[in-house]
Formats: sequence, structure tokens, C-alpha cells
Amino acid sequence: MRKLTSRLTNHSERYNQVVQQADLAESSNVRWCMVIKPYGFAIRENIQSILDNMFKNTWHYNAYFPLFIPKSFLSKEAEHVEWFAKECAVVTHYRLKNDPSGKWVVVDPEAKLEEELIVRPTSETIIWDSYKKWINSYRDLPILCNQRANIVRREMRTRVFLRTSEFLWQEWHTAHATYEEAEAEALKMIDVYKDFSENFLAISPVVWPKPAHDKFAGAIDTYAIEPMMQDFKALQAGTSHFLGQNFGKAFDVKFTNENNELDYVWGTSWGVSTRLIGWLIMAHGDDNGLVIPPALAPTHVVVVPIFKTPKELKEIKEYIKPLIEKMENIYLKFEWKYTKENMKLRYKIDDDPNKTPWRKFNERELKWVPIRITVGKRDIENGVLEIFNRETWEKNSMKLQEVLEILEKQLLDSQKNLLQKNKEFREKNTYYVDSYQDFAEKIEKWFVMAHWDGTVESADKIQEEFKATIRCIPNKEYLEKDDEWKCIVSGKKSKWRVLFAKSY
Amino acid sequence: MRKLTSRLTNHSERYNQVVQQADLAESSNVRWCMVIKPYGFAIRENIQSILDNMFKNTWHYNAYFPLFIPKSFLSKEAEHVEWFAKECAVVTHYRLKNDPSGKWVVVDPEAKLEEELIVRPTSETIIWDSYKKWINSYRDLPILCNQRANIVRREMRTRVFLRTSEFLWQEWHTAHATYEEAEAEALKMIDVYKDFSENFLAISPVVWPKPAHDKFAGAIDTYAIEPMMQDFKALQAGTSHFLGQNFGKAFDVKFTNENNELDYVWGTSWGVSTRLIGWLIMAHGDDNGLVIPPALAPTHVVVVPIFKTPKELKEIKEYIKPLIEKMENIYLKFEWKYTKENMKLRYKIDDDPNKTPWRKFNERELKWVPIRITVGKRDIENGVLEIFNRETWEKNSMKLQEVLEILEKQLLDSQKNLLQKNKEFREKNTYYVDSYQDFAEKIEKWFVMAHWDGTVESADKIQEEFKATIRCIPNKEYLEKDDEWKCIVSGKKSKWRVLFAKSY
Repeated sequence: MRKLTSRLTNHSERYNQVVQQADLAESSNVRWCMVIKPYGFAIRENIQSILDNMFKNTWHYNAYFPLFIPKSFLSKEAEHVEWFAKECAVVTHYRLKNDPSGKWVVVDPEAKLEEELIVRPTSETIIWDSYKKWINSYRDLPILCNQRANIVRREMRTRVFLRTSEFLWQEWHTAHATYEEAEAEALKMIDVYKDFSENFLAISPVVWPKPAHDKFAGAIDTYAIEPMMQDFKALQAGTSHFLGQNFGKAFDVKFTNENNELDYVWGTSWGVSTRLIGWLIMAHGDDNGLVIPPALAPTHVVVVPIFKTPKELKEIKEYIKPLIEKMENIYLKFEWKYTKENMKLRYKIDDDPNKTPWRKFNERELKWVPIRITVGKRDIENGVLEIFNRETWEKNSMKLQEVLEILEKQLLDSQKNLLQKNKEFREKNTYYVDSYQDFAEKIEKWFVMAHWDGTVESADKIQEEFKATIRCIPNKEYLEKDDEWKCIVSGKKSKWRVLFAKSY
Repeated sequence: MRKLTSRLTNHSERYNQVVQQADLAESSNVRWCMVIKPYGFAIRENIQSILDNMFKNTWHYNAYFPLFIPKSFLSKEAEHVEWFAKECAVVTHYRLKNDPSGKWVVVDPEAKLEEELIVRPTSETIIWDSYKKWINSYRDLPILCNQRANIVRREMRTRVFLRTSEFLWQEWHTAHATYEEAEAEALKMIDVYKDFSENFLAISPVVWPKPAHDKFAGAIDTYAIEPMMQDFKALQAGTSHFLGQNFGKAFDVKFTNENNELDYVWGTSWGVSTRLIGWLIMAHGDDNGLVIPPALAPTHVVVVPIFKTPKELKEIKEYIKPLIEKMENIYLKFEWKYTKENMKLRYKIDDDPNKTPWRKFNERELKWVPIRITVGKRDIENGVLEIFNRETWEKNSMKLQEVLEILEKQLLDSQKNLLQKNKEFREKNTYYVDSYQDFAEKIEKWFVMAHWDGTVESADKIQEEFKATIRCIPNKEYLEKDDEWKCIVSGKKSKWRVLFAKSY
């Protein structure tokens, strides 16, 4: 195991090291795609299972739609083509055959598809094609449907979890009978993401609407969650779009409303992807490796017996029996706005005789197990166990009974501490500036809250000069009403202090 | 809602009706793919969640590998090419662009991939490519890795759930240090499938090895579960392959064993797909529609209040409060060989004022909710509820307290009854024959157990003449040792009575 590069020296290099050394994922021989290794996938499964509960608790359900989209679907109206990615994977043939030499396979030139199929870069066109069949009257609404799927958009510069041509996501596409209901849905779902981000990922994001020039082209409003990474950059990782009747019109989906009139359906869409794992790595990591909030950690507690002979191991196992029995019955309780999780404690006993304790410690410190309990011959003599808290780095010898009493609390505390740290980190590194000069100085590194006149020109100027963008616009609570405020770029009147940052 | 075709008149037509009317799935405008609708997907989620627990309880874990396979991977050695499907989706280009008219999109001819990518028809080649990197020594083994993924193999004649070009499956690829360990793994996993099939799907399959001429070409042995559908045909829906060192050799994956010698890795692979849902529909359906074992039913209990006014509805809701409170705390316990499920009761109150009770009943009978409870004004006066059991078709008025007492038992009984019925149905419709003439008569419709000399010639003759195949070969327990037995085709000596059947 090599020593990790510091987070501050080269955050990007360090990211790659953690991904590799903690066995999270690897690039594949297929340049477009990543391999999510078992440890990385276990984190993803924990994320997905909690999100799925939150969605079901808010009355949503899952379905599955085709991987392929006929080219004509993306052609329906030229103006909508711009809504979707054009760098994508195009299927043109349907058969391989043996080369005459019999040594390799070639594409059969005879087997050409009549119409090319596009591997879904997103599924609006195909999902709304089904909705058109499903929706006749207001009685068929709302439709609150999600799909978990793999998505392909060709990316030249790939980065595991953050940007790969193939990635996994969930995309929700809802259909409603009224403006109000659809808008409320988009707002509720960004609140669900916020709840999940804070209370499970332990990441405190800024959650405000995107500026009009940076929203999804097919949307009326786009909401996003934008947290600060440890290199002070923003990383958008969840969006919710209020689509108005744009999709209803684009895909010609009408319904009979309660007054027996034909009208276009109202819609929303929202999604999160495997990017969330990239978030976790970049938002929480410390000098020793990965940091994962206990709610999402694949293992909560690892018990490492220190032994030389099978007989010693047997004695240790006998000694820790009450600990194991207790752990079998610990359920961690997470009760938040949209879900109650009653999470069975996930523990492991690592008695592999082929690895030294030192190697076991190192591996677990890098990969993150919140609590490590070690027990050797001398501990038995003294009637104690050694408990190590990976977050606080505290190590204590304690009587068995004491360990049993604090185990659960240490895990729940760690969950809270991580959120608190992340929130403080973001707040501490967000600057409020009122001049272009101050802006120029701070934006090189930090989040900056500054006044903006609402024009694309001013936003573009900042982007050109500093490679920073407006991440989002304060919602009503943050609206300052002082007539004195001026845009830091144009000097014109501003009604908003908005969040500028560099981003991934 | 149209009346369903009888299961006996036209089983195939009836299958399509149930899929459509019960809102399970639909064909899509993309001929290759199906849309799994929310109700169908809910069944799939229940299947998957239980299987996932069973796999994790047997120490397996999940990961994710690329959707695309470079053409060269399928070319590595000509002999192995034959192992995999050649009817597949070939990606040749990576960009769309606007047509000069701006009205539609075309494939950019400039954007041609240097090497074509194949949408995975199965993932052996790409997964073993990773294993090669992961495995050096016996200490890295076993690898017990699964992936849940979408798979594409072009099919000309598609049938929702049973045969579509895109389908969802889980494919396990395990790697081991010894012959014994790998063989034991393949056998254990077919036992897991059998356990799942019997105790959750309530389907009693025949579980024996496939004959050598019908096993997967890359395997030493292939095991399959083969149940009987209601039209007496077989439908293979889960296989487990003991691969020996074939994959280790084909993909050149070696390891240092405990004696410090280099050796090829031993492997297994096994999988089940969305076909399982097709199974369920065809194995259990009755004249009124879908039948789903309670363990997998999206809803266990539906409560239908019979009311005319909001006031009446309010009174009913007040009256059934104790029922709801009780149902909130019911957990159905399923304890089988490989898993313990503590399943929260899934109930729904259907108080939609826009639908008549008659329509609600009909819908639920077709889609299958095991227990329906209705309650109207007169029931309140009499202090009763009406409880309807969809499996037995029994309807009873009972006091609230009595309902509470029998609810759980009725569900668990129904689970057992369905398995019992299915087992009896298969046994009753399996014939033991000893002459070609008897065989010819029975094989037109039923499962037939008959003697076979073990040659491909005899198997081929049966297939040509009757379109029936050898589904599997009895394992040791079924081996008859009588020297008198003769193959029904050749009259030569036979050591096995094997299962012949027509199949999907």
C-alpha cells in the first residue's frame, strides 16, 4: 500500500489513489466504461436501498424501459433534439460472423438495421412514448415512475464515478394533471435529495434553483444540490426539473381533465447517478483514506482477533461470544423526514490467518470501517477489549460491558459529526464579496456569494475570465431586498446574491 | 376488461392477455425490447430482493462490469467464439448530428469507432478480463461475484418475459482454487435456485443435470431447474454451470496455488432472468387471472370500503382502525434453507371514489391480491368484515377479532397450497413409459420419463419426430440399476430413465 497524496497538494491524484487502493472501481479495457468493484458496489447498494425507501415512502414506484431508442424518436422535432446528448453509442448492425480464416469474428455487413438504434443517453423520449399509451384521463394521473438504468453518453475525458461514458443512474419521470401538482413534485423531490444528502451522505449541500441560462433546456425550473468538495470546488450531483407542459407538448401527450377538456400533461424529471460515490470520496476523505458515513458503510464494525495458534483463536472467540451476540441484535435507527431505517449492524470477524494484524488494520483504515475492535491474549487476561474509532482516531481499552454500551452511540455520533464537519467546512470556505477585485481573489479557490444582475453576459464574463459559474440562485429566504446592491460585473442593479464556484 | 381465454384452449393467447390486462408489461416501439410496467416490476423487485438475500447469505457479493465488449474480446480464440451468441447489437458509431435541413438527426459518418463494441450478450469475456487482474495467488480466491445487468441477444420472435432481445438477469461468475470447491459451488447454487423456486415461487421443478449434448459448450456440467407449465411444457429458467478450468484457460487466468505452483483458475457461472416472471404467469395462473405466491405478491391485503358519501367513508375508516393498526405490525415469516425473511405485511386501502367496488374487485381478482377485505355500512351495524380469499375463492363474514386471527395464517397457507398444487400437477402429468409407442402417445402432451441409451443419435431422433428434448438426466438417487432396461429409441442398453418434454 502506497502512502496517499495529501488532499491539499493534488486532490485529483489523491482521488485516483483512493479509488484504486480502496478497491472501489477500475477503468476497464473498454475505454467508455468503468468496472465497479465489489467494495464500491456495496456502497452503491446501500445508497440505492435507502433512496428507494425514500421514494416509495413518497408514493413512487419503479419500472423498466428499453435500452435502445430508435433514431426517429430523437428526430421528432428538431428543437427538442437539442435537449439530449448527441455524443452517444449508435447500433447499426445485429450480427457477428466468423472471419473466413475462422480465427476471429467480424461484423456481418449483410446484417444492417433498417433504422439505427441509440443506446439511451437518457430516456425521456422512450418513457413518454409509453405514457402516451397509459394516459387518457385525469384518473390515470399522476404517474410517479422511476427507472434504475445504465446510461451511455460518450465522454472523451473519463474519470471513474465522476464522468464515464457508461454510468448507472435512476431517472424519474412523473406526469401530472396540474401545474401546481407538478411544481410541488419537483420541489418535494429536491427536498428528498437534500434530506438524503444531509442525513445519510452527511454532506451539507447548497440547494437552490439553477440560473435560467444553465437549466435543462426542456425545463421551466431546474433545482440542484451543490456541495463543496475538499478542494473547495462544487460538484452537482442531483437535479430535479419542473418541466411544465414542455414534454407533454413535445411528445404530444394529452389527457381529459376534470372539466372534460383536452389538455397537455404536466411533468417533472429528476435523477441521481453513480456520481454520488465520487461525492462521498471527495467530500469526506481524510489523510488516511476513505471516509464513509456509518449509515452507508459496508461494514460498521470489524473484530480482529490477535492470535498465533488455532487454540488462541478459539479462546478469543469464546471470550468475545457476548460481544457477537449483542452485535447480532443491534439495529441502528435513522429517522429522518422521508424514511425510517432500522439498520441491522453490519460486522465482520477477520480471522484470516494469512494476513498480519498490521495489514488488516491498514486495509480497514484506508477502506474505512468506523469501529475496529481488537482482542488478544493479554486483553483476555485483563478482561478488556481494544476499541478504535476511525473517525476520531481514539483508541481505548475497555471492559466488554462498556464496549457494548458505547458501540451504537459511537456510530450514530460519527454520522452526526461528519455532517457537522462538512457543513462547517463549506460555510467557512464561502466568502461574501462586493467588489470585482475581491471576487477575483476569492473565486480562484473558494465558494463566493456575490451580486449578479441576472444577465447571461455577466455570467459569461465570469466564466471566461475565471472558469467559474453561477451554481445556483438563492431562494426566497435568501433574497436581499436592498436597492443599493450592484452586480459585481456590470455594476447594474442586482436582486440576488448568487453562488459562484469552480466545479467538476 | 375482456374475459380471459381458457388455459387449456389456447395457453399462448391467454398468456398475452394476462400480461396485458394485469399491467405486467408491454411490447415497445423498439422491437427488440419490452417495457416492464410498474406492477410487473414490483413482482421482479420482490423476486430480486429475496434472491439477493439468499446469495449474500451464501457469501456472494455484487459488482458491475461494462455494457460494451470490444469485438476483439469475442475473437480471442475461434473455438470459444462458439460459446457466445453471435446475434447481437453492434455499436459502430458514436455521434448523431443534425441533418442539414435541421428537421431530423442522422448518424455522423465521420464518427466511426476504431473497434466495434458489442452490447453484452453475456459477460464472461469482460468479467474474466477483470479477474485476470484481481487474481494472483490462492489468497485472492474464491471470487464470488454477481452482476445484475441488462443483456442483449437479437431474437426474431419475441415474447414478453420469455424471449426478448433485451432482458434483465443476474449472472454470477465465480473463481476457485480447486476442482472440488468449484464443483461444490455449482451444485450449491442450483440448490439455492431450487429452494427459491419451491419456497418462494411455489413451483416444484425437476432439478437434474442437462445431458452432455445440451450443456453450455464451455461447461463440464450444466444443472438446470425445469418446472412444468400449465400446458404441460417445460420451461428452463435457471442454470448453473461447473466450468472446470475451461474459462481459466480460455482467458488465461492463472494463480499460484498453496504448493507455490502456477495453475489455471477453476470456475462456475449461473444465472436467472426476467423469465422467472414468465414462469410465474404460466405455472400458477387460474381462470380468473394471475396467481402469485404471497411471498412475492406486491400487495398482500386490499381493503375496499363500500361507501357513497365522504361521511360514510369516514365512519368506515374509524371502524377499521384496529385492523389497520394490527396490519401495520404483521410480519410474515419465511424461514427456508438459505434465508430468513421477515416480511412486513403489504396492504392497501382502496378508497378511490372514481371507481366502483365492482371494478376494484375485478381488477384485484385479475392482478391477484391474496386477501380482500370489504366493509360497508351494514357490516358496521353487524360488527363484521367480509374477507375474501382469492386462492380458495371463499368469502366469509367475520368479526374483526376473527379476521385479525386468521389473516397471517391464510397468507402462509396459500403459499404452501400453491406449491403443493404445482407439485401434484407435475407429478400427475409425468408418465413413465417403456415402449416407443407409449412414448409417441404421451410425449405429444406430457412430461415423459423413459429410457435412453445416452447417444446423441437417439436424442436427435426424438427431437426430429416429436419436437421434444431430453430436459435432464436423473441424479444418482434416481439411477435404476436394472440390466433389463432398454432405450426406447434404439433398444440398446440404457442406464438412465431421463426426462423428455416439449419446452419453451
